[in-house]
Amino acid sequence: MIKTEKMKGTSHKPLRTLQSMLLGHPLATADAPNQTIGKLIGLAVFSSDALSSVAYGPQEVFVVLSLTGLINLHYALPIAFGIAVLLVILTFSYEQTIHAYPGGGGAYIVARDNLGELPAQTAGAALLTDYVLTVSVSISSGVAQLVSAFPVLFTYRVWIAVGMILFIMMINLRGVKESGAAFAVPTYFFLVMMTVTILIGLARALFGGLGAVVNPPPVDITLIQPLTLFIILRAFANGTSSLTGVEAISNGITAFKEPRSKNAGITLLWMAGILGSMLLAISFLATHIHAIPAESETVISQLARTIYDGRGILYLATIASTTIILMMAANTAFADFPRLGALHAGDGFLPRQFTFRGSRLVYSNGIIALAVIASLLVVIFQASVTNLIPLYAIGVFLSFTLSQAGMARRWWKCGHLAPGVEVKEPGSTLRFEKGWVTKMVINGFGSFCTLVVMVVFAATKFKDGAWIVILLTPILVTIFFSIHRHYKHLAKQLSLDHKYEITRARRNRVIIAIGGVHRGTLAALQFARTVSDDITAVHVSIDPNETAKIERKWDYWGDGYRLVILNSPYRLMLEPLLEYIDKIDAHSQPGDLITIVVPQFVAKHWWTEWLHMRNAEMLRKALLHKENVVITEVPYQVS
Amino acid sequence: MIKTEKMKGTSHKPLRTLQSMLLGHPLATADAPNQTIGKLIGLAVFSSDALSSVAYGPQEVFVVLSLTGLINLHYALPIAFGIAVLLVILTFSYEQTIHAYPGGGGAYIVARDNLGELPAQTAGAALLTDYVLTVSVSISSGVAQLVSAFPVLFTYRVWIAVGMILFIMMINLRGVKESGAAFAVPTYFFLVMMTVTILIGLARALFGGLGAVVNPPPVDITLIQPLTLFIILRAFANGTSSLTGVEAISNGITAFKEPRSKNAGITLLWMAGILGSMLLAISFLATHIHAIPAESETVISQLARTIYDGRGILYLATIASTTIILMMAANTAFADFPRLGALHAGDGFLPRQFTFRGSRLVYSNGIIALAVIASLLVVIFQASVTNLIPLYAIGVFLSFTLSQAGMARRWWKCGHLAPGVEVKEPGSTLRFEKGWVTKMVINGFGSFCTLVVMVVFAATKFKDGAWIVILLTPILVTIFFSIHRHYKHLAKQLSLDHKYEITRARRNRVIIAIGGVHRGTLAALQFARTVSDDITAVHVSIDPNETAKIERKWDYWGDGYRLVILNSPYRLMLEPLLEYIDKIDAHSQPGDLITIVVPQFVAKHWWTEWLHMRNAEMLRKALLHKENVVITEVPYQVS
Repeated sequence: MIKTEKMKGTSHKPLRTLQSMLLGHPLATADAPNQTIGKLIGLAVFSSDALSSVAYGPQEVFVVLSLTGLINLHYALPIAFGIAVLLVILTFSYEQTIHAYPGGGGAYIVARDNLGELPAQTAGAALLTDYVLTVSVSISSGVAQLVSAFPVLFTYRVWIAVGMILFIMMINLRGVKESGAAFAVPTYFFLVMMTVTILIGLARALFGGLGAVVNPPPVDITLIQPLTLFIILRAFANGTSSLTGVEAISNGITAFKEPRSKNAGITLLWMAGILGSMLLAISFLATHIHAIPAESETVISQLARTIYDGRGILYLATIASTTIILMMAANTAFADFPRLGALHAGDGFLPRQFTFRGSRLVYSNGIIALAVIASLLVVIFQASVTNLIPLYAIGVFLSFTLSQAGMARRWWKCGHLAPGVEVKEPGSTLRFEKGWVTKMVINGFGSFCTLVVMVVFAATKFKDGAWIVILLTPILVTIFFSIHRHYKHLAKQLSLDHKYEITRARRNRVIIAIGGVHRGTLAALQFARTVSDDITAVHVSIDPNETAKIERKWDYWGDGYRLVILNSPYRLMLEPLLEYIDKIDAHSQPGDLITIVVPQFVAKHWWTEWLHMRNAEMLRKALLHKENVVITEVPYQVS
Repeated sequence: MIKTEKMKGTSHKPLRTLQSMLLGHPLATADAPNQTIGKLIGLAVFSSDALSSVAYGPQEVFVVLSLTGLINLHYALPIAFGIAVLLVILTFSYEQTIHAYPGGGGAYIVARDNLGELPAQTAGAALLTDYVLTVSVSISSGVAQLVSAFPVLFTYRVWIAVGMILFIMMINLRGVKESGAAFAVPTYFFLVMMTVTILIGLARALFGGLGAVVNPPPVDITLIQPLTLFIILRAFANGTSSLTGVEAISNGITAFKEPRSKNAGITLLWMAGILGSMLLAISFLATHIHAIPAESETVISQLARTIYDGRGILYLATIASTTIILMMAANTAFADFPRLGALHAGDGFLPRQFTFRGSRLVYSNGIIALAVIASLLVVIFQASVTNLIPLYAIGVFLSFTLSQAGMARRWWKCGHLAPGVEVKEPGSTLRFEKGWVTKMVINGFGSFCTLVVMVVFAATKFKDGAWIVILLTPILVTIFFSIHRHYKHLAKQLSLDHKYEITRARRNRVIIAIGGVHRGTLAALQFARTVSDDITAVHVSIDPNETAKIERKWDYWGDGYRLVILNSPYRLMLEPLLEYIDKIDAHSQPGDLITIVVPQFVAKHWWTEWLHMRNAEMLRKALLHKENVVITEVPYQVS
């Protein structure tokens, strides 16, 4: 009775021409890329988010310090040291995660395995929020770089940013073939340009010859505040936005060549080393040249312009590489957001649609959702990094905290296992390990540090926008749990495990809703005849002349079936029909079905589709909650 | 065989809770109001568009003149005289239309009857464009009045404007009960406030005591141009935006009490008299007090503030009445745009959906379309009347020109009829009339004048934005005719008038697409049994464990029907199913149907609906162009 058939997952012929043009033909045998990557490529693939943040992190430290006057900008350097120390702590902590979760240790998974549903959903909500902000911030910063090089674009910055987001969305809807080279070229281009710029800059700074920036942008701030600890902490909080992206490698361990934990771990060390050096060097050089934080020109641009003595080819290459790496960072979020969304949806905490892969093997719904929300943020905050930054990074630090706390708890559990016992969890395997106390302390200390930073964040940037995220996170978590409850309730309602009596269908009355008598109507009648012999055609009459014509035609073509004319003095279409169905339904017995057949002509070209009303869809909406009523649209193709 | 049933056009029970909350319960017996109105109410109902334009017309004359320096602002007065003369010519011309078309003589109908399809569609396109601009301009001006009184709102002006548009949209979606009082109160409030303001102003100006405006807003313009004829004409063109709305009464003659042409005609004279006087008085007073045109404070506000010596209660009442009448003007467009759209759609030049009235007897699609486009314009032009005005009024003057040219042609036709002969046209009846030459000359002269003004418009405001409308109108007309061609082609394809052979349905194979075996699946199976005995259940397998469970359950519940498992190694849902259907379909004989039955559980609350995928809808999109394949969604209601 049961027949199993093996099919290739190849896809159907192009569904729509426009879609194909924009998104490419559906992928034929598009399996996820199974080839693994080495450390050099891995660095390129996973570090664009982290490394690109040097384009705005130091600058946003300057922005806060400049509130107290330009003379205090040199505090940026000690703040950068503080951030570098935090980076070291985080790196140690995440090294342990990478080795404990060789299958991928994202905050959601680590928190779910070790802390439970609520912390896991919280970490997920925080991360989803922050992926959106990664897109908005990275793209806004990318546009700011462009605008620095071509000031004439300043007026259009919001639209350029939205255009970039839509462009990246399109690419992701097409399905990114995650070939290492596509990532390696821009990442290493950026690394080379930054290294050259920094080395020349440092050489000129040490051996003389690097002066202040020429024609600095006008200072945006007029009201000078006193330099307080609060300001220092706020500047520090802004700077730590550079640490977002550090977790990327721990999410993607499976992409690495074996021994993958080791390779991923070494790559993390490289990334942290490069990021830390760049942060310190850029902070030092920017202070040295007296760069001015401003919306009209980025600190990176002022730096490159000063080091290269003007807007020459090297300057342009530096700006181009920075813009591109920032776009790559946004692109990373386009990969991570839908994947995390699918993970939530698979566990029943987000709509199931997010688990659905389109014909090009991508999570289309998640990609579109991300693009829409990020674009909205860009428009609302006018593509200003300074406006967006107070919202940013809180989510990441919350997920850092939860993830490391989860790790600490994991070591505690490991430490209390008898030697030789193995406990399998969804994400990793627990066994007794020597030195679990040290490991627990490292992760615990990391968790504590990021918690402190998060509190500093929340306090110092609260009124500038952080309150939005602080408010949003619990709301999201509540929504996630409501969705979960809904799905569980539904499954129970649909279940056959309890006593269930089938109502056998006794008879099926068919109503054909006709607007005229034409070929489409006759196709619908032919379908109706296969369903039942109890067929009634119903026409809602608005124009008596038209109705007379329909009656005449039905007499000839209607195969002798009944035609009911419903007069509609107020020219309404749907309501008289609904009322008629109500009346018929009132006489229903158990097991009686009513099938409403709606003829629908289908034009050849998709662009003519919107010229036709979807009567079936309107009926469906109106009758969805009526039991035993089925609506069937019978298409009739017109060449 | 044919049974006719009379039904009241009452509507169905509330379709959706949210919709009901926002839009009100569907109207029960909501026929169009049949009571007719007198002249006083008629003036209130039809003049808000025309009268409200004094809030921006004179100001926009000032804006252009101020480009040549503030000393030239006094040219506003002679320009206002010129506009008043044009108003007199238009009034004479439209008096004749009102008497010739007692059933309503909008530009679309007059042009269609007398000039043909192309001019009619052009007039319609121009009017539709201008209704959109009426909303954008009126609301932007309304917000500018508000902002003048409460400068703190300036930053939020775009969002206030969009909010107002959405508010008016909601009201119109609920269905406006066009009771005269609802219009009379705000219109007469405005007329009273304006009369008081103007009379006190004139008295103070004549008997001394009306000085220059105190604390005028800062002048926006810095670069001074020479005063040329071009500038004068451009100022004039801006001022004629005050004449939009003059045609409103001729569209709505049927609303008047008998003798309706006479009543409508007298109302038009009143309206023209009031509008002309207000234009002249405001221009005079604004010149007298040296009002400064600026985005931050409207001329009306400066006038009221100067006449009432500050922002007292009378000042606030004036501003409030102006803001409200401007909103009423936008509301008028919300009545006219969907009605004209329905007229076009009824003739087959716009999508049929625009003829569809929702459960509250309004043309919902037209209303929503208008709100969306007008809001977009407001956002793009930042709610600035000065930015929007170059696009405005060209459409109205084009339709004036065509409508009056149509009238002139009508008199020509009348003049060549034998006495006693009557020719019926859709909109009016032609018979010989004495004095047809004079009437033809009056309409012809009116047409000529508005044509000249339109050319002046196009030339002087071309690069400020008029080019958009000049480009858009022919594009719209082309689209209208393409749509018309499509509908005609379709009707021919569907026609039964030519030889047509029915293919009798021979067999109907049913495929039930199942994601699991639950109560919804069994409901779908019961439906399928009424359709055919040839039933196959198909499951796309992603998780082997899940599949094994489904096979086991189907063995028990599946009534012995076949279950086919389609493996999907790449976790795609739709594609394996489509491929299977393709394969089945390849063996189809003429007369074979394939019915795909999709179980769909329906949750009780509308807000949970988005948590469920509409598999049927996705299949429909993919299979729409496949002949003889019917998709049926069988709903299963979950409490």
